[in-house]
Amino acid sequence: MKETFEHVAIAGAGLVGCGWAVQFALAGSEVTLYDERAETRQSLPSRLHVMLDDLEKAGLAKNTQDAFSRLRICHTLENALDGADYVQESVFERVEVKAEVARRIGALISSQAIVGSSSSGIPASAFTQDAPNRERFLISHPVNPPHLAPVVELVPAPWTAPDAVPTVRRALAAIGKVPVEVKREIDGFILNRLQGALLNEAWALYEEGYASIQDIDATVAHGLGLRWAFMGPFETIDLNAPGGLADYAERLAPLYHGIALSRTQPRSWSADLIRRVSEERRQALPLDGIPARTRWRDRRLAALVGHLRAQERSDEN
Amino acid sequence: MKETFEHVAIAGAGLVGCGWAVQFALAGSEVTLYDERAETRQSLPSRLHVMLDDLEKAGLAKNTQDAFSRLRICHTLENALDGADYVQESVFERVEVKAEVARRIGALISSQAIVGSSSSGIPASAFTQDAPNRERFLISHPVNPPHLAPVVELVPAPWTAPDAVPTVRRALAAIGKVPVEVKREIDGFILNRLQGALLNEAWALYEEGYASIQDIDATVAHGLGLRWAFMGPFETIDLNAPGGLADYAERLAPLYHGIALSRTQPRSWSADLIRRVSEERRQALPLDGIPARTRWRDRRLAALVGHLRAQERSDEN
Repeated sequence: MKETFEHVAIAGAGLVGCGWAVQFALAGSEVTLYDERAETRQSLPSRLHVMLDDLEKAGLAKNTQDAFSRLRICHTLENALDGADYVQESVFERVEVKAEVARRIGALISSQAIVGSSSSGIPASAFTQDAPNRERFLISHPVNPPHLAPVVELVPAPWTAPDAVPTVRRALAAIGKVPVEVKREIDGFILNRLQGALLNEAWALYEEGYASIQDIDATVAHGLGLRWAFMGPFETIDLNAPGGLADYAERLAPLYHGIALSRTQPRSWSADLIRRVSEERRQALPLDGIPARTRWRDRRLAALVGHLRAQERSDEN
Repeated sequence: MKETFEHVAIAGAGLVGCGWAVQFALAGSEVTLYDERAETRQSLPSRLHVMLDDLEKAGLAKNTQDAFSRLRICHTLENALDGADYVQESVFERVEVKAEVARRIGALISSQAIVGSSSSGIPASAFTQDAPNRERFLISHPVNPPHLAPVVELVPAPWTAPDAVPTVRRALAAIGKVPVEVKREIDGFILNRLQGALLNEAWALYEEGYASIQDIDATVAHGLGLRWAFMGPFETIDLNAPGGLADYAERLAPLYHGIALSRTQPRSWSADLIRRVSEERRQALPLDGIPARTRWRDRRLAALVGHLRAQERSDEN
């Protein structure tokens, strides 16, 4: 059985679609790309080139010329999908847009192909119900920036064929991603639910005047986030008490239960609260500084991923 | 005005107390250590030596011989506190133990000294009420392992003198820590409330059968935690939408509000749930593997801190 997909089609070639494209191409797949916007298609060669180049410079990819030669831009969805054994859909995240694209893709694929959607929170059942071959669709959600962060959430719809998740899981693991499995649909999946729980507490602590935005960010960036960059939350607490997780949980469950009980009346992030938090961020970084800071983030993230990979290799030896 | 403290006394010299001791000594302070357990006092020289050695090997400290010469073990609390301008209390985290130690420390310090407690969740008002000089006490909570993770939470009691938090904040920043300020008392402070919010969601997702412990850990370790290792949660979302945090919040507030609304009836981590999660962890790592895995964590964390420091230096140039 082949390790990963031979021919991957990318439907929707923005940042996320391009991130997928270069990773499959680096792993040896033939990749066809389609985007309905002509100007996006035109800019693709230079954008893909820059992305591959950045990965090579960061030491995260080799032979990027070969990978580039496996990328082919198509001017119709039909051409892109022709012969594909896997389709990664990364169009705009609105349910009616995804539903229309799913119907078109479903009508074009072979009954053996699989379609993964990059949806970050909308479950597949919300937009594949009326698609032909709907049992071939699932969610395959990467994290921003998708060419750097390894994790991918796989979420089946109720009608997804049983072989789809394990097949994609194996194929993504083979190209160096870290696929995780959400066993059934839930809004926000795992990643954004965990992020949301932490964010909701962070907004509430700020709103109630306990700490500044800057200090809340520092608490994570110089504390909580360090262990979470290479261990998950369960392993972290497992190593935080002599008797492991059970010991930790027995001692601290009352504290954490109290935290949950203090948040049983969740407020929405109000317009006024968003304005105040935004003002603190805009003082730290003006709006026109975001593109440069985003490049800084990607540089830092590439260096961090390189560091973590080297550590993992040295763990293995 | 001097940058940091001249003479730091450590009351309670377990792992946390030793972590504080080596950091102050490396920064040039004279450090006296006291622990009421004679066998702990006896093992101190070798434990402090190993800790300094590990930091030097990881490239995180230089001149550790000089630092070692500034560490002095005392056999009474009186001796340790004599002349100290700062006391770091790191005794066992139980309110009656901390209250008794606070009374003894309060009776021994000068009225200008400050006492920081390493308490990870009990606020200072719960154990300093009856202490002499109680206005000199505050919480100064590090993260495990304390000699590696930079963040320290500073939390005043209602009666803490107004100069105490800014003085400790400056002194800790001067020795390379990242102090953050919790403006008034709240159970769990900032760090453990943020951790608790994420953990509560993680336990619930497992309990409801959405994902395995291993996949929840991987979602953080290979996804969420990567950005959080060098940016906080607010900066992360600020860079995740073209229009910054306000743009992101307006689009995603409904999703996150929905997540909060689905958790308005928090359950305690039940004994059965703890048992099941613990069993999954024990399959991944037997209980007797915890000490070795903890050393692995500290090695990885030291390497990560070294990597992040080097990145920060290269950002500045």
